[in-house]
Amino acid sequence: MTATFAGVIPPLCTPFHDDFTVDTGSLRRSVDFQLNAGVHGVFILGSSSEVAFLPDAQRRTVMETTIDEVAGRVPVLVGCIDMTTLRVAEHVRAAEAAGAAGIVVTAPYYTRTHVAEIERHFRLLRELTELPIFAYDIPMAVHTKLDGEMVLRLAEDGVIAGLKDSSGDDAGFRYVLLGKRDRGLADFAVFTGSELVVDSVLAMGADGVVPGLGNVDPAGYVAIYDHVRAGDLAAASAEQERLMRLFTITDVAPPSRMGRGSAALGAFKAAMKMRGLIDNAVMAPPQLPLNDEELVRIKDKLVAAGLL
Amino acid sequence: MTATFAGVIPPLCTPFHDDFTVDTGSLRRSVDFQLNAGVHGVFILGSSSEVAFLPDAQRRTVMETTIDEVAGRVPVLVGCIDMTTLRVAEHVRAAEAAGAAGIVVTAPYYTRTHVAEIERHFRLLRELTELPIFAYDIPMAVHTKLDGEMVLRLAEDGVIAGLKDSSGDDAGFRYVLLGKRDRGLADFAVFTGSELVVDSVLAMGADGVVPGLGNVDPAGYVAIYDHVRAGDLAAASAEQERLMRLFTITDVAPPSRMGRGSAALGAFKAAMKMRGLIDNAVMAPPQLPLNDEELVRIKDKLVAAGLL
Amino acid sequence: MTATFAGVIPPLCTPFHDDFTVDTGSLRRSVDFQLNAGVHGVFILGSSSEVAFLPDAQRRTVMETTIDEVAGRVPVLVGCIDMTTLRVAEHVRAAEAAGAAGIVVTAPYYTRTHVAEIERHFRLLRELTELPIFAYDIPMAVHTKLDGEMVLRLAEDGVIAGLKDSSGDDAGFRYVLLGKRDRGLADFAVFTGSELVVDSVLAMGADGVVPGLGNVDPAGYVAIYDHVRAGDLAAASAEQERLMRLFTITDVAPPSRMGRGSAALGAFKAAMKMRGLIDNAVMAPPQLPLNDEELVRIKDKLVAAGLL
Amino acid sequence: MTATFAGVIPPLCTPFHDDFTVDTGSLRRSVDFQLNAGVHGVFILGSSSEVAFLPDAQRRTVMETTIDEVAGRVPVLVGCIDMTTLRVAEHVRAAEAAGAAGIVVTAPYYTRTHVAEIERHFRLLRELTELPIFAYDIPMAVHTKLDGEMVLRLAEDGVIAGLKDSSGDDAGFRYVLLGKRDRGLADFAVFTGSELVVDSVLAMGADGVVPGLGNVDPAGYVAIYDHVRAGDLAAASAEQERLMRLFTITDVAPPSRMGRGSAALGAFKAAMKMRGLIDNAVMAPPQLPLNDEELVRIKDKLVAAGLL
Repeated sequence: MTATFAGVIPPLCTPFHDDFTVDTGSLRRSVDFQLNAGVHGVFILGSSSEVAFLPDAQRRTVMETTIDEVAGRVPVLVGCIDMTTLRVAEHVRAAEAAGAAGIVVTAPYYTRTHVAEIERHFRLLRELTELPIFAYDIPMAVHTKLDGEMVLRLAEDGVIAGLKDSSGDDAGFRYVLLGKRDRGLADFAVFTGSELVVDSVLAMGADGVVPGLGNVDPAGYVAIYDHVRAGDLAAASAEQERLMRLFTITDVAPPSRMGRGSAALGAFKAAMKMRGLIDNAVMAPPQLPLNDEELVRIKDKLVAAGLL
Repeated sequence: MTATFAGVIPPLCTPFHDDFTVDTGSLRRSVDFQLNAGVHGVFILGSSSEVAFLPDAQRRTVMETTIDEVAGRVPVLVGCIDMTTLRVAEHVRAAEAAGAAGIVVTAPYYTRTHVAEIERHFRLLRELTELPIFAYDIPMAVHTKLDGEMVLRLAEDGVIAGLKDSSGDDAGFRYVLLGKRDRGLADFAVFTGSELVVDSVLAMGADGVVPGLGNVDPAGYVAIYDHVRAGDLAAASAEQERLMRLFTITDVAPPSRMGRGSAALGAFKAAMKMRGLIDNAVMAPPQLPLNDEELVRIKDKLVAAGLL
Repeated sequence: MTATFAGVIPPLCTPFHDDFTVDTGSLRRSVDFQLNAGVHGVFILGSSSEVAFLPDAQRRTVMETTIDEVAGRVPVLVGCIDMTTLRVAEHVRAAEAAGAAGIVVTAPYYTRTHVAEIERHFRLLRELTELPIFAYDIPMAVHTKLDGEMVLRLAEDGVIAGLKDSSGDDAGFRYVLLGKRDRGLADFAVFTGSELVVDSVLAMGADGVVPGLGNVDPAGYVAIYDHVRAGDLAAASAEQERLMRLFTITDVAPPSRMGRGSAALGAFKAAMKMRGLIDNAVMAPPQLPLNDEELVRIKDKLVAAGLL
Repeated sequence: MTATFAGVIPPLCTPFHDDFTVDTGSLRRSVDFQLNAGVHGVFILGSSSEVAFLPDAQRRTVMETTIDEVAGRVPVLVGCIDMTTLRVAEHVRAAEAAGAAGIVVTAPYYTRTHVAEIERHFRLLRELTELPIFAYDIPMAVHTKLDGEMVLRLAEDGVIAGLKDSSGDDAGFRYVLLGKRDRGLADFAVFTGSELVVDSVLAMGADGVVPGLGNVDPAGYVAIYDHVRAGDLAAASAEQERLMRLFTITDVAPPSRMGRGSAALGAFKAAMKMRGLIDNAVMAPPQLPLNDEELVRIKDKLVAAGLL
């Protein structure tokens, strides 16, 4: 018996034209590239999509274009990323209208919140929609860590259908996996958002992975998933290590020059462009672009990873 | 010569009906109460307004109602609170349409940003609007502190017209005041967002204050402002101390039970209701309400402050 | 070819009499219990030893007693935990005099430091001693994370012989393992300080583990180590999960009542006493003791783990 | 009625020879310079003394030399800076032996502590000594903020005789001042550790200041103190602003090059040497030295402040 959602579900980047409107042609091409690589779903309007930079109209364009292009081949998860319940609720309605297979929701942010209020947030959203809800644990963005016991309680009560854990707290993640098993929550889909320890968390029993680096190399993550399912952990580990080396593209731009968000997204988009997946690597404002020297180093790393 | 904006400009709370629509009647009553108390402006859609909880339609209702009720008697500053440039830009257009006298903008959040990107954020917004822009320094919400040197550079270049500093860093605030004087930026309006050291920062040369507690007792802050201008620092200090005691209503609900945001906003709204300024103290979800015992303690503190 | 140090090296707790002098009888009993369980070394005067609470004379007693009792059967690593270079240097001399097999050193703390100063700290200590130096990455205590590239540079230059990583950053840890392999640093001993992901980090190539919970159940960690070396990851994982459940003894005392340090150390010491390894579970001041209800819950967890 | 301790009590820097032994000649010269400038006490072995870098023998040399040189002219406060109760207790005994007028103690650090354990720490130390205890609130170093209510409770119970607040939380500091007055704690000495808002906190009722920058320009702080006592707040403010400009010497060395601790201490020591107060500006390892360009900029700022 498996969870409804499982496997490799990359958080898709959003290609732009120079005026920051969505480049729907590149987006469709990128979606097809993902599906051809064998991914088991796609996650749009997550952090890697620059969702925090997208006005609502552009979020709708991303949803409609992606869901149209996917055409039911795999589930499309949609991030409903906003500060608090009533604002998130509006994104939920838009996701429902667009035909999302599930939604992804963080803890409240900007406000100084509390575990009881975070729990209430998810429970209120559950009353508003029939769509499966993934709790998105991303303290780097929202500055609150989801409590593991709360996550399991929400899963037991049918409030959430899954967890996307981008917290970097592998021990905490493993307690959730243990709790899932102990409480018989087979349908509860537990995903890591890390790019770097996918082999080991899948071996521990995680249902899947949402790797930002999958924008550049989805086949690598599909290979890890298949290796782990086939019991070949050595092959999974070797592939993971290749991807760890590739992931260093996100550190090419130094912290003294730009935000860690732009450095990572800029590297993903630059690599996608170099691989011919999108036409334009521009990022939404106020993010700063990578420079030529940084782009050369990214190219070298793509070559080293066998991707160019 | 004085800055265009100066004095006491409270960040207005937003009264709701039980269904979380804006109670425009209470809002108008509250606005009139403020103006009768002598405030020099009002700031709507700031953190105290539950802006992070308000869908865009309700933000528009708050703007239209307030600006209509104020009817030009004082300037109305409008918070354009969102994560990044393009999303903020939409709120800026709405504020322009509604007739704001100025807008208030934070650093980007949710994304991991950088001082060069924060600066670019303000400069890009400056190109989009003729309205005066206040930089809003609120690391508690956005988890980045505005760099003082950057603030002064933006002021010198005419990018920002003011600063609302809710950072709690009084020494950094004073360096901005010193820089304002040294660089001859008489028009640059430097406001503190603190409720608790208003007398001393006005004495240091700050242009004004944006006190959340002013929702409950605007006359107190107007009195401090007048005392300082009259050179009566002892009277200003005595009034400030009375307001410090009153401000402890924000700690009545303990951190073990709810977020610090709800504890403070809940106390402001409860006090406003007790004073007859609004009909309903309900807060937007997922915030938790104060309990009866906590309300009794707030009432006692209002009595002690001479407000009931 | 293997590193000089490898395997399970528990960070020993320090048993006290009621007057907080070291209970050397219990310490000797505890050491023998560890060695009988098959550990490959012991680490004294680490965080689990309450080193931060021990005056220098008691540190010496711990060193002399342990090294005497071990009598060369396994290596004894000694924590030289202090704020900066000259103070650490004095502990290094004491460790040399006592016959330590290696020393363990953190980044500077109390002072606001910098990666270049942290690197200088280790290089200066290297000039002072012939003993192998382990870099101890414990941001929870010293509030600085060791930079992975710096760690590898120090290893390449022969400054440090090993790393004890208690940072909880598993992805960063894995980059160190990858760097160790890429740079041919076979002798560089990479240890995790986590109790909870030992099976997976050993599978990734870590040389060993320094588990605080090993004070209570060293045999469990030795079993994981042996299972991984034998290629039986399923057995390693099952044992790790049993120990994860046991580790929840450290959360029995709630954060509202005492520090997380006391809650964990109090649980280790209480469990050791229940298992007959030490006579007295008292902790050094100002730590607060566990209460009776908490002790009952710890006992239940020991029973569940098959240890009572 | 005034507190036992009041006025300007600078936290003295410790001059070294090139081998990091204490330069007692320079120390004596520096002490006399302070007393000639009119300070009301001196605080040795505080953070500015590099206490975190000083082995115990050198701490003793600092105590004995300073207390001998002061020869009873003003009180000498002694920092007993260490991680937890038993270690601090040893420094307390040394301070008693040396003839300290009072001791200064932080919250526990390195360990993850709790407000109840911090309170117990002070209460246990109170049982050990008759010396007045100052609570030292320095979250920058110990990563815990002292709770204001706890501070007042300890003052009421006679556990602590004073507070040195280097937290930067001016609102919190003012609540302590208010509590001092409301509870009739006239003898409780409330000091700020900030260099930058001395005029305003003295005006609010603080008893004194412990300014690191006082190593370079004690006369400036004595002038502020005298101006405030004479009711001349404008003169106090002008002097404070001159010292704010001088304080920017601590930012001359950039964060990309060295720790903020070294940048500040290095600037203080360099300025003291330029003024002829000490012979050698060397700092204890592993701190990095300022470079020539940085020293030139410091010299310029000393000239601008009228000190060279």
